[in-house]
Amino acid sequence: MTEIILINHIKTYLTLSEKELSEIVLFFDCHSYNKKETLLFAEKRCDRLFFVADGCLQLYFIDSLGNPKTSQFAIENWWLTDFLAFQDQRPSNFYIETVERSTVLSISFSKYQELLDKFPKMEKYFRIIYETAYGSALMRLKYVHSLSKEEMFFRFRDSFPEFVQRVPQYLLASFLGLTPEYLSEIKGKQLS
Amino acid sequence: MTEIILINHIKTYLTLSEKELSEIVLFFDCHSYNKKETLLFAEKRCDRLFFVADGCLQLYFIDSLGNPKTSQFAIENWWLTDFLAFQDQRPSNFYIETVERSTVLSISFSKYQELLDKFPKMEKYFRIIYETAYGSALMRLKYVHSLSKEEMFFRFRDSFPEFVQRVPQYLLASFLGLTPEYLSEIKGKQLS
Repeated sequence: MTEIILINHIKTYLTLSEKELSEIVLFFDCHSYNKKETLLFAEKRCDRLFFVADGCLQLYFIDSLGNPKTSQFAIENWWLTDFLAFQDQRPSNFYIETVERSTVLSISFSKYQELLDKFPKMEKYFRIIYETAYGSALMRLKYVHSLSKEEMFFRFRDSFPEFVQRVPQYLLASFLGLTPEYLSEIKGKQLS
Repeated sequence: MTEIILINHIKTYLTLSEKELSEIVLFFDCHSYNKKETLLFAEKRCDRLFFVADGCLQLYFIDSLGNPKTSQFAIENWWLTDFLAFQDQRPSNFYIETVERSTVLSISFSKYQELLDKFPKMEKYFRIIYETAYGSALMRLKYVHSLSKEEMFFRFRDSFPEFVQRVPQYLLASFLGLTPEYLSEIKGKQLS
């Protein structure tokens, strides 16, 4: 049962009874996706928050030249949506797509509100999740402003070695703001 | 009384009694600062979360060439710290400094935990604050990867016209990843 992955993640932050946990997961829908399936479309109303139980998602947008650019990855135990659009139920600024075969729990905005009303302890869970995510985003903005593209790659590889093996290189290049050719060059230099 | 600014901000998100609100603000310390005072030092333990009641703070770091680079501004009703370091009580990756004369409420990590234990409704308040902040950071990362430096400036100026007037131009340049000279040039072009 996929829901156990979310239950275990919640348990690392909160003390809840088994009854409460089994009621909480009823708020979520579970779906399995193939690689490269789209879960959220830009310019469509953003009505879902996603939790990755297995696999990997990417949040991306299409730039003015028509190229997709990855803004965020989400692997197991990570939450993803266009949070500003989700809060206001506005059209999304991003697409969300599977990077590999993935199993995802998701919740609609109205169910999310119901969940938080019925289980106020979940406010603490999401407070910690977003506090960490925001802190990480500030660190990423720091790196964007202080490291060369080459240094960005090496820092990312040293911090997330398995992830670098797992994600297609053109997506990693997009996430780091490199061309795939330049990423190849950096990796080649390192091997030579 | 400065605390009323925080009380009013909390009231926009939560329904709390006057008694609860007056107890909540007792967890905070209030200080007034001159321009360019340092509230948090990089490499010192990050033990405080700051709320700007009046004025403006910047979160910055020193790059490898010794230049300060602004990662985030915080004006009235905004929360600021190095969130990852604060969570783990580790040394900060950033400095926090006043941009202008400012009045700031702050809370230590242990008091923050006590506050959240005693008033669990505050979890909802911070959940919404961080959800918005994280969503905004993802949008900023989108702009960093999709807009030219010139477009970044114009978008920022159109979104926050008063802020662009208020903040020293060398700090705005640092925040946008421009040199002050290039920012001047962009602004000059627009006027000519």
